[in-house]
Amino acid sequence: MLNNDSIVALATASGAGAIAIIRISGQDAINIANSVFKSIKEKDLTRQKTHTLHLGHIVDGAKTLDQVLVSIFKGPNSYTGENTVEISCHGSTYIQQQIIQLLLRNGCRMADAGEFTLRAFLNGKLDLSQAEAVADLIASDNEASHQIAMQQMRGGFSNEIAKLREELLNFASLIELELDFAEEDVEFADRTQFNELINRIEFVLKRLIDSFAVGNVIKNGIPVAIVGEPNVGKSTLLNALLNEERAIVSDIAGTTRDTIEDELVIGGIGFRFIDTAGIRETQDYVESIGIKKTFEKIEQAQVIIYMLDSSLQMADGSLQVNQIEIEKIKNQFPLKPLLVVGNKSDLLTKEVAEKLQSEISNLNLISAKQNLGIDELKNQLLSFVNTGALRNNETIVTNTRHYDSLLKALEEIQKVKYGLETNLSSDLMALDIKEALYQFGMITGQVTNDELLGNIFANFCIGK
Amino acid sequence: MLNNDSIVALATASGAGAIAIIRISGQDAINIANSVFKSIKEKDLTRQKTHTLHLGHIVDGAKTLDQVLVSIFKGPNSYTGENTVEISCHGSTYIQQQIIQLLLRNGCRMADAGEFTLRAFLNGKLDLSQAEAVADLIASDNEASHQIAMQQMRGGFSNEIAKLREELLNFASLIELELDFAEEDVEFADRTQFNELINRIEFVLKRLIDSFAVGNVIKNGIPVAIVGEPNVGKSTLLNALLNEERAIVSDIAGTTRDTIEDELVIGGIGFRFIDTAGIRETQDYVESIGIKKTFEKIEQAQVIIYMLDSSLQMADGSLQVNQIEIEKIKNQFPLKPLLVVGNKSDLLTKEVAEKLQSEISNLNLISAKQNLGIDELKNQLLSFVNTGALRNNETIVTNTRHYDSLLKALEEIQKVKYGLETNLSSDLMALDIKEALYQFGMITGQVTNDELLGNIFANFCIGK
Repeated sequence: MLNNDSIVALATASGAGAIAIIRISGQDAINIANSVFKSIKEKDLTRQKTHTLHLGHIVDGAKTLDQVLVSIFKGPNSYTGENTVEISCHGSTYIQQQIIQLLLRNGCRMADAGEFTLRAFLNGKLDLSQAEAVADLIASDNEASHQIAMQQMRGGFSNEIAKLREELLNFASLIELELDFAEEDVEFADRTQFNELINRIEFVLKRLIDSFAVGNVIKNGIPVAIVGEPNVGKSTLLNALLNEERAIVSDIAGTTRDTIEDELVIGGIGFRFIDTAGIRETQDYVESIGIKKTFEKIEQAQVIIYMLDSSLQMADGSLQVNQIEIEKIKNQFPLKPLLVVGNKSDLLTKEVAEKLQSEISNLNLISAKQNLGIDELKNQLLSFVNTGALRNNETIVTNTRHYDSLLKALEEIQKVKYGLETNLSSDLMALDIKEALYQFGMITGQVTNDELLGNIFANFCIGK
Repeated sequence: MLNNDSIVALATASGAGAIAIIRISGQDAINIANSVFKSIKEKDLTRQKTHTLHLGHIVDGAKTLDQVLVSIFKGPNSYTGENTVEISCHGSTYIQQQIIQLLLRNGCRMADAGEFTLRAFLNGKLDLSQAEAVADLIASDNEASHQIAMQQMRGGFSNEIAKLREELLNFASLIELELDFAEEDVEFADRTQFNELINRIEFVLKRLIDSFAVGNVIKNGIPVAIVGEPNVGKSTLLNALLNEERAIVSDIAGTTRDTIEDELVIGGIGFRFIDTAGIRETQDYVESIGIKKTFEKIEQAQVIIYMLDSSLQMADGSLQVNQIEIEKIKNQFPLKPLLVVGNKSDLLTKEVAEKLQSEISNLNLISAKQNLGIDELKNQLLSFVNTGALRNNETIVTNTRHYDSLLKALEEIQKVKYGLETNLSSDLMALDIKEALYQFGMITGQVTNDELLGNIFANFCIGK
């Protein structure tokens, strides 16, 4: 799987910018760059020190393509562990193409998705879970997902697994040794110590597995279903929630261009708002189907917001209908946190507001338009998220592949534990331990195969 | 106008990529970067050599924001001429924002559009027309505009102007000297040599002014009006022209995402296709208005394509109607090149094809769908463009501001010339020379003012 050929790709975001970076990695990277580079000071790139920058021009025969800055990294002191050159050129897409095409003609080939990071992994610069964290880091769009990816990239999680794996490996070899002396019935592996280790591993695995529930919602955003009739002010609420967060970043061009209205970051945590048709709307005609669909959507959510227009509740019957809807939801989803929000509170008299609050328990009166009660609502949303682990810098698993391997490892460890309790023979126990070791290795990449690597790195962008 | 405060901006294209570059420039750039950077090898950035790269983490107190590579450039050996730091971080927009916000809190301010290049100009790293070429270079999307911008950035054009200005300046000072000795009636400035210089300047100015016509269409694309009824296959033709060019760059992700269907690059030259309503369509009802509009659009074009469906010309009257239209256009625009294109040639018998070609002179039979005759059409389009200058690496003016100054300079030089011919007094001639010198200086930036600079750099993107 390990190739030494030189790969090239655009490493910065596609499109025009002031500058763009084209990255080359491979044994011949510096030679190839040197063959198309004319230094201002007549320098030979192949004779330069690692981690140095050089000004000059990229030339295609007699034609000058661009004035560029070239960074030299000599393997193993580079991201990939190979010789690496980064060409910092003017950010026109035309220039990017021209330079990449020139490099392709001069012995590079186009990098596959994630191939730079794959090489970093194959050259031992990163373990597999660190490599996976690189993709998460690039995709991170809020504080929580960024922090988890950063921690994982720094090895917090896989270090722990690797250490446990090593301890387990020691015992495994002692037990293998027992097999060689099977007829003499000796025990090289201290069963008490071994038991203690297995318990410790079980504890760590359970903690990591439990963290996945938190990790998963943090990575993908916490789903919030908003139930309510049209015109109660749902969009206005989303804007009110969004605007404040947006203000922070508004001075950086382009950061908000991809914002989707229904995905919000509140207090560093991502929330996904799921629009529902409302429970009442379809009551008469296709009642059962309508309600079923809404309930399905609520099912996907972790938090439910029931929103009503508080200014309309004094009309006959309105309040009662809403109370019935709220009870329905509570009965159907007793475990999901429910926030009842009465919008347009600015249109209420004090008396009406008090009456509503006595009729509907825990009613949050807000005015999305006037920005009243929005902060309180944010705090309530955040309070539903168990981020204790996050604040305590605990390791959180966010990757489904890791979660899967951890579950399998736990299963094997529990077999070993049962074996210890029932005095299972060493040969059978050795098999269970082997299986657990395998699952541990799958996480860190000490055990791997081409298919697995292919799957992981195909999800990367080209250039990383 | 020259500030020493430290400015920061994202220098790469906005959006997520594998990596992103954040650039800081200013007296304190290295100090500020050092205050938020924790080197892997415990290095102090302020003690590092210029043009070196350093691996480490950007830290906000106890929180690690990202693992980054930091490039150090010490003034005057940097793009801006000031101390400059480039932080190469992971390309998540969240991380970009976090790092920029951290730097803003640590003494940087957000850079204005073009401010890095403005500083480069103010620090004498570039002259004004070179600085303008940077923006053109970033915007260049085809070979011709790229080549012109590249040439201008390397000083080809402004060097010539600056040299002439210096020669003129010499004579100006000699003539000023004459003024001091006015009563003695001496001539320090050799009138024959002066005359020769003025002629040389006039020649160069005229050549540069003439080049603007070519430069302008190359920069903005050559406008081509396509006249023809719906369904003759216009879109198919555009696709056929486009597809081949696209194939070259299809392996680079994202390069074509901004392609607008009606802008094509053919043989390195940009073409803009202008859709017209067709001359016939509106004949009955609002005939005069419809034709007027179409003619207005053709007016903007440099080349006209008249497209017809060759497979329908044997129906009664069709051919005659088209012949009348073609004559109309020829009469109205005798100087504009006209390409008559008969599409769907694959549906014709040989006899019909021959008949059509005898009826319509210079008919180009093509099949856009079958990709027949497309190359010939491309060559015809290219043949209309005078790119002799381009191929000969001649200087081409593309900037309206330069064109304007050149026209004014020519006017002043012609006054000087007339003065020489009519033995104008030195004091009056000195005034004309001064005015010409002023216009020359406006191009290269030796003469400048804040308003002019403001206008020029406001068109840059932030980060450049």
